[in-house]
Amino acid sequence: MNEKSNARPHVVILGAGMGGVKAAQCFAGEPVDVTVVDQNNYQFFAPLLYQLSTGILEESEIALPVRQFFRSQSNADFHLGCVTGFDTANKTVFTDTGDISYDYLIVALGSTTRYFGMKDIEEHSFPMKTLSESAAIRDHIMRCIESAAHETDEEKRQALLTFIVVGGGPTGVEEAGAIAELLHNTLPRDYPRLDLKKADVKLIEMTDSLLMMMPMKLRESAAKSLRKKGVDVRLNTAVSNYDGETVTFKNGETVKAYTLIWASGVQAVDVCKELGAKQAGDGRIIVGRDLSVPELPEVYVIGDCAHFIEKSGEPPLATIAPYAMQEAACAAHNIMCQIEGEPQKTFVSHDLGSMAMVGRFAGVMAKGSMTMDGFFAWAAWLAVHVIRLAGWTTNFIVLYKWLLNTLFSTRPACLTRERDEAKNLQ
Amino acid sequence: MNEKSNARPHVVILGAGMGGVKAAQCFAGEPVDVTVVDQNNYQFFAPLLYQLSTGILEESEIALPVRQFFRSQSNADFHLGCVTGFDTANKTVFTDTGDISYDYLIVALGSTTRYFGMKDIEEHSFPMKTLSESAAIRDHIMRCIESAAHETDEEKRQALLTFIVVGGGPTGVEEAGAIAELLHNTLPRDYPRLDLKKADVKLIEMTDSLLMMMPMKLRESAAKSLRKKGVDVRLNTAVSNYDGETVTFKNGETVKAYTLIWASGVQAVDVCKELGAKQAGDGRIIVGRDLSVPELPEVYVIGDCAHFIEKSGEPPLATIAPYAMQEAACAAHNIMCQIEGEPQKTFVSHDLGSMAMVGRFAGVMAKGSMTMDGFFAWAAWLAVHVIRLAGWTTNFIVLYKWLLNTLFSTRPACLTRERDEAKNLQ
Repeated sequence: MNEKSNARPHVVILGAGMGGVKAAQCFAGEPVDVTVVDQNNYQFFAPLLYQLSTGILEESEIALPVRQFFRSQSNADFHLGCVTGFDTANKTVFTDTGDISYDYLIVALGSTTRYFGMKDIEEHSFPMKTLSESAAIRDHIMRCIESAAHETDEEKRQALLTFIVVGGGPTGVEEAGAIAELLHNTLPRDYPRLDLKKADVKLIEMTDSLLMMMPMKLRESAAKSLRKKGVDVRLNTAVSNYDGETVTFKNGETVKAYTLIWASGVQAVDVCKELGAKQAGDGRIIVGRDLSVPELPEVYVIGDCAHFIEKSGEPPLATIAPYAMQEAACAAHNIMCQIEGEPQKTFVSHDLGSMAMVGRFAGVMAKGSMTMDGFFAWAAWLAVHVIRLAGWTTNFIVLYKWLLNTLFSTRPACLTRERDEAKNLQ
Repeated sequence: MNEKSNARPHVVILGAGMGGVKAAQCFAGEPVDVTVVDQNNYQFFAPLLYQLSTGILEESEIALPVRQFFRSQSNADFHLGCVTGFDTANKTVFTDTGDISYDYLIVALGSTTRYFGMKDIEEHSFPMKTLSESAAIRDHIMRCIESAAHETDEEKRQALLTFIVVGGGPTGVEEAGAIAELLHNTLPRDYPRLDLKKADVKLIEMTDSLLMMMPMKLRESAAKSLRKKGVDVRLNTAVSNYDGETVTFKNGETVKAYTLIWASGVQAVDVCKELGAKQAGDGRIIVGRDLSVPELPEVYVIGDCAHFIEKSGEPPLATIAPYAMQEAACAAHNIMCQIEGEPQKTFVSHDLGSMAMVGRFAGVMAKGSMTMDGFFAWAAWLAVHVIRLAGWTTNFIVLYKWLLNTLFSTRPACLTRERDEAKNLQ
């Protein structure tokens, strides 16, 4: 059903995230046909999922239909479907909506949550890697508060008001800060009979500091800002078990909580193993210096599902969007080289710095030896993120909502979802 | 768990729709305690569900957390829970989140979709009475278009591009118009390889005209406007069967379509029968002239689940929001009369007119002998609906989105939902 004419090479790109879309755009005007495949008809902006999960923004504000990226690129097409497998011998990808044959393939399927084999945590905790996972967190937080508002048993009420975020990376830091502000700034006016000062947000990090990719000074600044917002930051602490009501830490301590958000690990999406190529321990596919799979020279892997060692002896390249987009450009370039019989180039990464939002008026950012925290890092974070959002009509709404949230702590999307989608609190 | 002190009468209001919230607000400052119960933490504005289902607006733009209505009303509280039954002898309501005892009860639980016993239609068609039902329609429409874009079988492609709306009331009229504009104005720029001119939107109505509550002139104007937008309006046509792929009409004709939206019947929500009071054929509870249940003088029923005959021999009062809100005020008044030992008043309805949106620049409205159609009715519809939306922050975003939709046919929320929530098209 998706056979392309043999006149032009057919490049199939799996995944419409930052890497996949960027790769497709790099083929604009080239003599190839490009098909982008994704299980959703949209690209979402993962760095703002935490705002969806805490009622600040809505789905359409952080997601854009994939086809809108290709309005002026006539050689790009989109295929809605979930990748289920590969027949690399016959250069074919299987999806739940039909098979697609390719001449060149770019795998940019991204990552999913990693639980390190802890089944109980996988079953009872909330991951936060997709729009619907983030909306589920928002629903659950609102249900916990509503239950707490009528709960007469003090211990149970405290457990309903205890929110545990595991993982001190940017996602965990931003989520913990946003929940604390939701509970302490936004909701009290609607719950006059509930003492939300007793709400307890804990950020749990296994190592001795938050935001490991940042300079030490900023790590401490982030922890300090979070603590000022009322977040109980626990370093050198690891979770060993969670049954939906009680968290057990490695040191034996237990805390009652109906909410545990797991932002502590990522691994390549499961279907990567179907490719039959060599994988690292976290499922990422090991790629060569030109980003192709050594065993499969017409297959490139980029972004969160690629395991790329830039300098031998160093850890693999971090799974962040800027690197995915840089890899996308390199993979697209190398495919054109292959088509034209020219030598491929080695991928070289460029550090664009990193930043995180700790809450209202508090951010941290670092690039090389330059560091910034507090108000200016916060303002820079807002600017960078709104610019990266696709679609100017959306930018305007997002800025408007951020303004209202900053001035009045307004969060327009604090809505539950319908009941069959909710975790049972009884 | 929800016992109130006996010092003040406890009024429990079931349902946070237009009627329920209005009733609660009528008790502001009165010496009673009010508890509003709803299975969602929000009130949604049903007249705009069709805009959610066609990608114009998002959930938070047509829904507002219930508690925000009561920020300045200290005697009102909210209870999140789904009503499961009643013990009227002991004046207790059962919910899935605990029992609630009452002195006075207002039942304002609203209506659900009615299939008139047609199980195959209930199984395969899309209802449109809630936020998630409307989001499911949006998801399904987008999946049908995506499938059509790669479908080589012409008959199947046509079935994917055929959208059938059943029911010629305001919901059906608005939904058919909005789908036609989505297919013909918004989407073509994103599907250059798909001939969306072949998309077929049919509006099916059993009687001989649309919008039965309107004067004849406007009914014809609405049908004409829809036809101009490319909607195939079929009057005097009834659906007898739908298996998910083929619609069969009463006259034996069949049409292949993967989408059938059922906007053709309403009935009181199921739990009304648990009250044990007399019900009409559509499940509505038969109330007396003061809106109380004859057998249960401390129980009032208002809105879509009340069967109220204003003048004997006439049909029961229509299930529309303005009447629900008028009934709310009367029920609240009568409860205060009961408490104070004064006589209750008879409910008298006031016709506020009716209006419907047929699409861009086309509306119809009627009040008494005054009628209007075309551009001015369209503009009046916009004004009335944005004013009725709760929350000024939202009004601004809605107006902005309507402006962009009117000027550029922009629909920012044309997103699929995650796969496990979708109807299978294979």
